[in-house]
Amino acid sequence: MLSITDARGRILALLRPTGAEIVPLGEAAGRVLAAPVISRLTQPPRDVSAMDGYAVRADDAAAGARLRVVGIAPAGHPFGGAMGPGEAVRLFTGSVVPEGADCIVIQEDATEADGIVTLRERGLPGRHVRGAGLDFAVGDELLPAGRVLTARDVGLAAAANHPWLSVHRRPTVAILATGDEIAMPGEPIPAGGIVSSNSHALAAFVRACGGVPVILPVARDDREAIAAAADAAARADLLLTTGGASVGTYDLVQQGLSDRGLALDFWKIAMRPGKPLMFGSMGGVPVLGLPGNPVSAMICALLFGRPAIERLCGLAGDAPPREPARCTVALAANDHRADHLRAVLARGEDGMLEVTPFGPQDSSMLRRLARADAVVLRAPDAPAVAAGAMVEVIRLAACGL
Amino acid sequence: MLSITDARGRILALLRPTGAEIVPLGEAAGRVLAAPVISRLTQPPRDVSAMDGYAVRADDAAAGARLRVVGIAPAGHPFGGAMGPGEAVRLFTGSVVPEGADCIVIQEDATEADGIVTLRERGLPGRHVRGAGLDFAVGDELLPAGRVLTARDVGLAAAANHPWLSVHRRPTVAILATGDEIAMPGEPIPAGGIVSSNSHALAAFVRACGGVPVILPVARDDREAIAAAADAAARADLLLTTGGASVGTYDLVQQGLSDRGLALDFWKIAMRPGKPLMFGSMGGVPVLGLPGNPVSAMICALLFGRPAIERLCGLAGDAPPREPARCTVALAANDHRADHLRAVLARGEDGMLEVTPFGPQDSSMLRRLARADAVVLRAPDAPAVAAGAMVEVIRLAACGL
Repeated sequence: MLSITDARGRILALLRPTGAEIVPLGEAAGRVLAAPVISRLTQPPRDVSAMDGYAVRADDAAAGARLRVVGIAPAGHPFGGAMGPGEAVRLFTGSVVPEGADCIVIQEDATEADGIVTLRERGLPGRHVRGAGLDFAVGDELLPAGRVLTARDVGLAAAANHPWLSVHRRPTVAILATGDEIAMPGEPIPAGGIVSSNSHALAAFVRACGGVPVILPVARDDREAIAAAADAAARADLLLTTGGASVGTYDLVQQGLSDRGLALDFWKIAMRPGKPLMFGSMGGVPVLGLPGNPVSAMICALLFGRPAIERLCGLAGDAPPREPARCTVALAANDHRADHLRAVLARGEDGMLEVTPFGPQDSSMLRRLARADAVVLRAPDAPAVAAGAMVEVIRLAACGL
Repeated sequence: MLSITDARGRILALLRPTGAEIVPLGEAAGRVLAAPVISRLTQPPRDVSAMDGYAVRADDAAAGARLRVVGIAPAGHPFGGAMGPGEAVRLFTGSVVPEGADCIVIQEDATEADGIVTLRERGLPGRHVRGAGLDFAVGDELLPAGRVLTARDVGLAAAANHPWLSVHRRPTVAILATGDEIAMPGEPIPAGGIVSSNSHALAAFVRACGGVPVILPVARDDREAIAAAADAAARADLLLTTGGASVGTYDLVQQGLSDRGLALDFWKIAMRPGKPLMFGSMGGVPVLGLPGNPVSAMICALLFGRPAIERLCGLAGDAPPREPARCTVALAANDHRADHLRAVLARGEDGMLEVTPFGPQDSSMLRRLARADAVVLRAPDAPAVAAGAMVEVIRLAACGL
């Protein structure tokens, strides 16, 4: 059996980022930059005032000085001429500092009457002036390629005068559930059947990871039906299947996809939940075969699907981020398979993150998975730990799950 | 001046959640439930097998027992009759356990030939059987109203047979930037002007918080123009303005909105960055006036706008979540205004979160804000802290910023 890390490495090795597309700035948040954002201007473009007040010459600006107000220059309306000795110009936050001035006296420290401003505080050179280019200069690389754009980044790109950005196309991720027992929500349920859940959870997860999900119709447990369903994924960037990757007689996904040229890479991982996992390539389309049990499918999606989709989106495809937490209960020694215990998080009185795994961890218990905040990672052959020991956790919602 | 907590309380007191709308399950992730999700069925619907194997009677299932295989029942194809003594039925994961059987022997522990299965391991009552209702039962409340739906929740709602969900309507949040100096990205920039950034960053932030942003055209620094622009927000759930909430002569937003009936609630907060802040109601539309400096606007959006939008979405409107981190540098004592130092995060060698504030913290420095991972909270009059002391931080991207 493969380790999780080795399996993830093999998956990533087969994936290439999607190409670039141009999107309006307003649709760029959350997307991955395909090209760096280079500033098209200098910000601020000239020396500007950081406060409401008066532009003066520092040489003139002794406490008690009386200066002639020769103009008023709101932001966006620069003072036309140069300011001479003994003169002042009324400014506001963002106003361009007039030529000849080198300091701002804030309005709280000045009194204006009859065209004369009297200073109550001394002005110092450069005081309350934001120099041209304080934030950035034309030609600066403001945001690197490969960055997930935040709301702040969108603001920065706007300030640098970019109405459009080049981002990686969202990868199309086809989702194929199989099984005679599966009905779509709201549709008639066959005898002994259940309602499809994996496809819908995976679609939401794919979207959260940056992909565009395409839920294919449920394929019956029939080799031909599965092969035909796979044809609909021929233009996808990734095909996710659920169920049918185990060893049972009725596990036909592998056979059906083989009829369409699937080259299988591996299919057993030393982990729990989720041992049966399949990866391969079918006519150039990468195929990740997830287990059928809901919890196994979701944990495998987190550990393998998320990095895969992120890699397609132009990111590195890192393992989900881990963080330390104090485990409130003792944990038994682990066997040779990596385990992922569903658990709830809280803050201890000392501010430390605390984690409490649920008791039963059956891989069919979707309700309990939904209630979990995190999974506790248990490495293969990890020794028993006492209550209060530190463990590593992955937060689920923060990873799009 | 008001404290941040008091200001947030006053804002929330004026806001009511939007009404409910019905959305398809596939569009429900990230939305806030307006009604609890009650299970429409029992899962599993009957006792089912947790493994591929054979359904047997535990009484018959001694090691070495030879049982007659009277049927095969894939998932979705239950065995028709009842199973008698000395009999077995071939099952797979998810298959309904036939009447008369009470235990599963996994296929690895059995050998089938000529219609007879020979057991290598003893079967125990209930072994590898998932009892009906193990996950949930009809009528159970699976997800409460007011919950932000995760991908897992979507899967759970699907499994409980809900093709539609009732969620709070996304609130419409109008965004009004003002200023003669402001141009939209890609458009001609006036002399001394700058390119609009706040509107675009706020729009992305509003969307991340669950709202639908509407960017109004930039209003000139003219009382009438601002009043006219405000008319376009008459049907919004919230109006965000940026700029014009300070004390300068050219701060006309308050005047313009007053012409449309704005009742002002307050406008100064004991915080940095972002002291000038305005809140009120204009013809029933709540108005939150953010400062004009980009960093101040974003931090105020985080502290006040996010709770406001979340309240409109049907959530509590809590303060952004804080977490402890070890500060790598010494911090001077704070003055009487709460401060929010832009900073980068890392993990220390001991796994502890570490935070390092930037040096200069000018509120015009958008590039530096974009590079920040978090803000360090400094309470009013907080004493100096030594390098290595614990402080509280808010992660920015995790809050939609």
